[in-house]
Amino acid sequence: MGYTVAVVGATGAVGTRMIRMLESSSLPIDRVRFLSSKRSAGKMLSYKGRPVEVELTTEDSFAGVDLALFSAGGSTSAKFAPYAVREGAVVVDNTSYFRQHPDVPLVVPEVNAHTLKDHHGIIACPNCSTIQMMVALEPVRRKWGLERIIVSTYQAVSGAGQSAINETERELKEVLNDGADPRSVQANILPAGGDKKHYPIAFNALAQIDVFTDNDYTYEEMKMTKETKKIMEEPDLAVSATCVRIPVLYSHSESVYIETKEKAAIADVKAAIAAFPGAVLEDDVSNQLYPQAINAVGSCDTFVGRIRKDLDAENGIHMWVVSDNLLKGAAWNSVQIAEELHRQNLVRPTEELKFKLQ
Amino acid sequence: MGYTVAVVGATGAVGTRMIRMLESSSLPIDRVRFLSSKRSAGKMLSYKGRPVEVELTTEDSFAGVDLALFSAGGSTSAKFAPYAVREGAVVVDNTSYFRQHPDVPLVVPEVNAHTLKDHHGIIACPNCSTIQMMVALEPVRRKWGLERIIVSTYQAVSGAGQSAINETERELKEVLNDGADPRSVQANILPAGGDKKHYPIAFNALAQIDVFTDNDYTYEEMKMTKETKKIMEEPDLAVSATCVRIPVLYSHSESVYIETKEKAAIADVKAAIAAFPGAVLEDDVSNQLYPQAINAVGSCDTFVGRIRKDLDAENGIHMWVVSDNLLKGAAWNSVQIAEELHRQNLVRPTEELKFKLQ
Repeated sequence: MGYTVAVVGATGAVGTRMIRMLESSSLPIDRVRFLSSKRSAGKMLSYKGRPVEVELTTEDSFAGVDLALFSAGGSTSAKFAPYAVREGAVVVDNTSYFRQHPDVPLVVPEVNAHTLKDHHGIIACPNCSTIQMMVALEPVRRKWGLERIIVSTYQAVSGAGQSAINETERELKEVLNDGADPRSVQANILPAGGDKKHYPIAFNALAQIDVFTDNDYTYEEMKMTKETKKIMEEPDLAVSATCVRIPVLYSHSESVYIETKEKAAIADVKAAIAAFPGAVLEDDVSNQLYPQAINAVGSCDTFVGRIRKDLDAENGIHMWVVSDNLLKGAAWNSVQIAEELHRQNLVRPTEELKFKLQ
Repeated sequence: MGYTVAVVGATGAVGTRMIRMLESSSLPIDRVRFLSSKRSAGKMLSYKGRPVEVELTTEDSFAGVDLALFSAGGSTSAKFAPYAVREGAVVVDNTSYFRQHPDVPLVVPEVNAHTLKDHHGIIACPNCSTIQMMVALEPVRRKWGLERIIVSTYQAVSGAGQSAINETERELKEVLNDGADPRSVQANILPAGGDKKHYPIAFNALAQIDVFTDNDYTYEEMKMTKETKKIMEEPDLAVSATCVRIPVLYSHSESVYIETKEKAAIADVKAAIAAFPGAVLEDDVSNQLYPQAINAVGSCDTFVGRIRKDLDAENGIHMWVVSDNLLKGAAWNSVQIAEELHRQNLVRPTEELKFKLQ
């Protein structure tokens, strides 16, 4: 009496981790289906030690599927998620395509699992950089309120997929082993696969993630702004982001500045974060303890440290937030949503088909 | 009738670049003296194509020296700079040791060259991360005033010296070529040579530069706060920093948020920065033009881009500031101070010995 769970984009950096997360999940799973594009269809993946062949994603792929986890890019979700819903599946979508749709809950389970009950077949998993910031800030918002957020990110290349990881490693080897000038190595993907120019990331910091919007912020930056307001249900919360890619493979780090509505003592902020599910306080500068990207890899938690008062603003607080962008930032948050849907008995066909087929 | 110029710490990452900057300087130089610790004394360096032997730094090294550029660590400056002054030299010190001394001008020539005339034998060169921020923000401060600064840095390992560069390259090779786990590579220097624990920088981001002060900020962060106020002569300017080391060898990048006193149009801010000496505007997101660390290497300029309004604060502006930390951040700013001292006819023995010998 378990579920049939489909993973769309099963061979990608996030998809492979979704499979690992499903293997160790408490979800009752009878069957898994691994779907991909033509390029990867036919490959063999493993699930709980047994081989599973990757199938081509088609409009007919979702018959009998109860839960479909999508992580194959926005256009794939746009094209196939409505078919999954039509077949009675509940979709957990890890792309940005449906995130701002009014009928789509945008969920970080620790923060707003209560919004799942309003789903119409599709639930969106927020952007990686947003999720970890929500885990760190929600305990602060609940106790003292939030007036504003200014965040500068230090994002890993794996957020741009396995090909960006490969590109980064190749570029670094060309510089380190072959003596190439970092300016002359060939870049094909970063900073944004869909943009015109590509720049090396080896020994560089690229202040562009995703393409630019018409207000001179990138889509990545605007995702942090819009998704934060939707998840926290705080339309008036001030949020501005600067999103930067650095030569790190896994785990995003964030320098986060907030102003609270009520004045908060730092010791109390630390205690609130430490008590919040999914958050781990790593903050003891006398012992040089603070979150580090390499230490967060493989963990589903969000690590928070360097919590300290702004030197001038009465209610200003700075902190350093680190999490594995492929796990809590994507695969784990998606599977966690699926678990929460199951717990709330919400894995069921929706009555109305709110999402039109193209 | 030219100067005798000594470089203390001549074999270091900054010292070698000071020598290159002196070679192309307009200063009238008759003779150079390259000084170092015991470890490097006797080595041969080149100056304008001729070999120069590196000498051990002693209390007697400065006889006949007109200008002494120090970049061998705070303790070396503390010990030997007063002897240089006693011998009639003017010291340009690239360490933090004298920066907050009331008799020591702290100088970014484009910003406050007028303070040089008050020197008493020692002029301090600010911290690398401060200097480039000053070049970017001084044109804004002059036209609209500054209320506050929040900065998150993306700093290159070369700021911690040649040994940190070597450590970073070794760690990256161990991970990339030998398949080492980034968590298990041996670290001996970063995040701070003088601190107890050392962490890998390969594929990591370390939210610690220098050791921690008693307010939970690091010394590096407090340098940005204190030096900004002194250089800009704005004791009430609000400045809070988060200083982070990333796996980049050369050039610091900074995500800078400011609030101006008067409201400023973004186009006017861009024009003011573009017109400021030492600053280069690289800001055209429609063509993906923004400053990049790898492009700044070898340049004496500070590159500024991603200039945009905060999404909420009326007078809030974000920008991205990049410069070669070893050049404008250290070697070039020091030589530039020396050039400015010459231009203002200030290379001369001081009447009073304000700096006591130990």
